[in-house]
Amino acid sequence: MSERIHASYWLETGDDPARAAEVIAGEQSSGTFVALPNETPELKARSGARVERLEVLDTSSLPSLPTPKRSPRYTRCRLELSWPIENLGACLPTLMATVAGNLFELRAVTGLRLTDLQLPASFAAAYPGPAFGIAGTRRLAGVNRGPLIGTIIKPSVGLSADETAQQVRELVDGGIDFIKDDELQADGPHCPFEDRVRAVMRVVNEAADRTGKKAMVAFNLTGDLDKMRRRHDLVLAQGGTCVMVCLNSVGLVGLHELRRHAQLPIHAHRAGWGYLNRSPAIGWDYGPWQKLWRLAGADHLHVNGLRNKFSEPDDSVIAAARAVLAPATDAAAMPAMPVFSSGQTGLQAHDTYAALGCTDLIHTAGGGIFGHPQGVSAGVEALRASWEAAMSGVPLAEHARRVPALTAALAFWR
Amino acid sequence: MSERIHASYWLETGDDPARAAEVIAGEQSSGTFVALPNETPELKARSGARVERLEVLDTSSLPSLPTPKRSPRYTRCRLELSWPIENLGACLPTLMATVAGNLFELRAVTGLRLTDLQLPASFAAAYPGPAFGIAGTRRLAGVNRGPLIGTIIKPSVGLSADETAQQVRELVDGGIDFIKDDELQADGPHCPFEDRVRAVMRVVNEAADRTGKKAMVAFNLTGDLDKMRRRHDLVLAQGGTCVMVCLNSVGLVGLHELRRHAQLPIHAHRAGWGYLNRSPAIGWDYGPWQKLWRLAGADHLHVNGLRNKFSEPDDSVIAAARAVLAPATDAAAMPAMPVFSSGQTGLQAHDTYAALGCTDLIHTAGGGIFGHPQGVSAGVEALRASWEAAMSGVPLAEHARRVPALTAALAFWR
Repeated sequence: MSERIHASYWLETGDDPARAAEVIAGEQSSGTFVALPNETPELKARSGARVERLEVLDTSSLPSLPTPKRSPRYTRCRLELSWPIENLGACLPTLMATVAGNLFELRAVTGLRLTDLQLPASFAAAYPGPAFGIAGTRRLAGVNRGPLIGTIIKPSVGLSADETAQQVRELVDGGIDFIKDDELQADGPHCPFEDRVRAVMRVVNEAADRTGKKAMVAFNLTGDLDKMRRRHDLVLAQGGTCVMVCLNSVGLVGLHELRRHAQLPIHAHRAGWGYLNRSPAIGWDYGPWQKLWRLAGADHLHVNGLRNKFSEPDDSVIAAARAVLAPATDAAAMPAMPVFSSGQTGLQAHDTYAALGCTDLIHTAGGGIFGHPQGVSAGVEALRASWEAAMSGVPLAEHARRVPALTAALAFWR
Repeated sequence: MSERIHASYWLETGDDPARAAEVIAGEQSSGTFVALPNETPELKARSGARVERLEVLDTSSLPSLPTPKRSPRYTRCRLELSWPIENLGACLPTLMATVAGNLFELRAVTGLRLTDLQLPASFAAAYPGPAFGIAGTRRLAGVNRGPLIGTIIKPSVGLSADETAQQVRELVDGGIDFIKDDELQADGPHCPFEDRVRAVMRVVNEAADRTGKKAMVAFNLTGDLDKMRRRHDLVLAQGGTCVMVCLNSVGLVGLHELRRHAQLPIHAHRAGWGYLNRSPAIGWDYGPWQKLWRLAGADHLHVNGLRNKFSEPDDSVIAAARAVLAPATDAAAMPAMPVFSSGQTGLQAHDTYAALGCTDLIHTAGGGIFGHPQGVSAGVEALRASWEAAMSGVPLAEHARRVPALTAALAFWR
């Protein structure tokens, strides 16, 4: 039996759903808009995409997306297609063109979202997955249990290298586990990457020499390939333990090449995710999307956070985090670490822990740490204490009685 | 005066538009959800994004996208922002994270489309643009005037290398200028890239030796970087004159690296464009999107076609083609060649020519050529004759009196 790739979609169509499903399967394999004499039954059996499942969910009198092909009724379905691996081989870029290519523009389609993707073993053989993942990240950050307590340098842009290092000093003195650049901060002339890395790592290394604990700093090296490689090498040479890249900015080839070169965990930012996901009528669910990037080598993947400041609902955040922790394929688990951020404080610790059942994650808070009335150190302590409470099943208010920094935090976290 | 990057958006917000504009500008530069003590007025003046223009268009009582922040009224605006180049430097990947990053997910946003992008001269200095563009493509294809008459190998997948070459033989014997692989056909085991290139180029080279005309074949080399480079080298060694790549599949780094390596024109496919563009509420217009890829080196860019089989309206197709032909920056024009496809025949020649005012384009027809009752050769002749008529201002029916292949074509083109 040949290996097959399976993709599931939420589909809305003004057409007969079975016909629409066949059109999509045809367009994404051996068929086209007109019947072809050389699309023989043998060729179709060998290379055609197959409709594995089609389940009507509900109907609507209006289309979700504009279409020149009007209909009195639009049917929403769950559609599962499969392709023989022989159509493309174990190639992530061509996989993307196959499961998320020209199908979104079809007239028969008035809504389409890629909701799931199941890949055969040959993809796990062809791609490396995360080099560090959860275990490697914990080792480098020196955090054996509980989440990595993290934060983001703010303002996102505008600080000089020395000002950035000054902010890092406060954070490492406060015992932080993880710090990241903002995705807008890469290598501008006001804060050149090289100067920033040198200045920040001087602070981080000094603190590590003093305390034995080296905070993990994810330096955003997003850029052209040669520059990303050089920047990675500088981070490594300066004793850094993480690099960050914006996935939509560099693409699958960018991440794959960085992974081949890197000797450090890759913190993967999803900037632009909104244009892929926010419309309920079109785009990608996080499950299938993160799988491609994990196979290509992402160690940490952003998932937003509970009660975040963006528009994403909590169930979507948790589904995303679970996807990042779930096996990438049956052949290889390749787990990555979900990164929770956006409006986060210790108030989300219990719910996040309850939803995931583990602490293999990075929890980043900005205002939740910097805003602490007793300072950054107390902010870090309070967030860590919230997770201790969550892991022990102790209510936050009760735990706060033993941790003054948490008591003070509860007065300002909202 | 420092150089600035300008991006325009269609914005819908349930908030006060001026406040929403400031939130977006802040989020994409030095601001964040909470006021920061170290976001000083000096820092903000230096690094903040600026609201250059905000023009209310209309309002709606319902939001275009789901939002947890309900409002009785949603205002649609044209918003123009600008950033100092110093925030990022002339870096396309970070530019993408800046103009199309986390802003789509903001609560204040219930609709957002990137509609325009104006880049300062330093981007044109930092990036190469198309190596061949219109002039280089015409030279390699041996087509001095009129569009390149082209087609696509069908079925998209499933043919062997020899069967593909057989189809190419018919086409080159028919005098075709341009042939492309389907975006689904890359390097599967049933039709390995290397076998396909060797078999096809044998046919193309033999015909070129015989007739002096070498058809341009765009071989889809989409894949991981090393493989793309090796595939390019094979095409070059076999006398091929074009390679094709799926932009969304390889990303900006993939295209940039291919451009650095390539000695052939890069035919850029936009597979997946639907998830970026089809919702009117979110995503990208083609104008700003194609500009990034052109700077990175795309020579040919797909724009769909008039009266196409997909859902895109004609005005959008023409706007896309005009964008591809328009200067990329004031400092460097970097024109690329628009590629018209999908349900195309000679019936679209007059309107396409009238809308563009030039023939610097590739016009690909599948059924419009293969379906010709007198064969492929007559199909090619009929499509070329349609363009001759368009360029001479002669109605199609009148020109058909002098061209029997066109007369026969008009009976079956619909």
